[in-house]
Amino acid sequence: MVAINFACKKFPIDQVLKCSFDLSISELEILKILLKKRGECAINEIVDRVDKDRTTIQRSMQSLYKKDLINRHQINLDKGGYYFVYSSKSKDAIKQRIKDYFSNFESVVIKEIDGW
Amino acid sequence: MVAINFACKKFPIDQVLKCSFDLSISELEILKILLKKRGECAINEIVDRVDKDRTTIQRSMQSLYKKDLINRHQINLDKGGYYFVYSSKSKDAIKQRIKDYFSNFESVVIKEIDGW
Repeated sequence: MVAINFACKKFPIDQVLKCSFDLSISELEILKILLKKRGECAINEIVDRVDKDRTTIQRSMQSLYKKDLINRHQINLDKGGYYFVYSSKSKDAIKQRIKDYFSNFESVVIKEIDGW
Repeated sequence: MVAINFACKKFPIDQVLKCSFDLSISELEILKILLKKRGECAINEIVDRVDKDRTTIQRSMQSLYKKDLINRHQINLDKGGYYFVYSSKSKDAIKQRIKDYFSNFESVVIKEIDGW
């Protein structure tokens, strides 16, 4: 989560994303890669592009999937076994969820001020 | 400043105050004492009630005064010298400032989401 000040003049989208989905730095980085790619990719492609160890990346992918920010699709191998490919949810869907969360946050804060 | 998550269900007034005015724990404590008192009081009364050393309390009073959350009024002594008495700004005035700050924050966040 991100420390904020309501008087701040800037609140970059990275902060907005972190506050909305409680993202770690690597989750944010992976999500941004997948959003830019606009297609499926296997974990190796992510490992090549993110400067973290494979275990951290796998944990981050798992977390993004649980947070419903990415899709996961199983590819079965001819000789048995499988691997996953990943893609991000659409940017519009993510934007809508942020708006919903923020709108909820707004009503929580306003209620608290009014009730003070 | 306070770490937040837009998905949070509760955001107590203490957090709201901290996010609005970037208050330290002792600033928050002193402000709440002065708000409850609804009258002027000298620093000794604060020192008696807050479990911090006098220097921290003086720094906090100075900071609250700069943030325009408290009034300061100089009392001159007959034999020369002076001391200050303090009171909080009205709760309504503080509430209005929080609402203004939050409204600003809201527009900063919405603009950032829309521009993403």
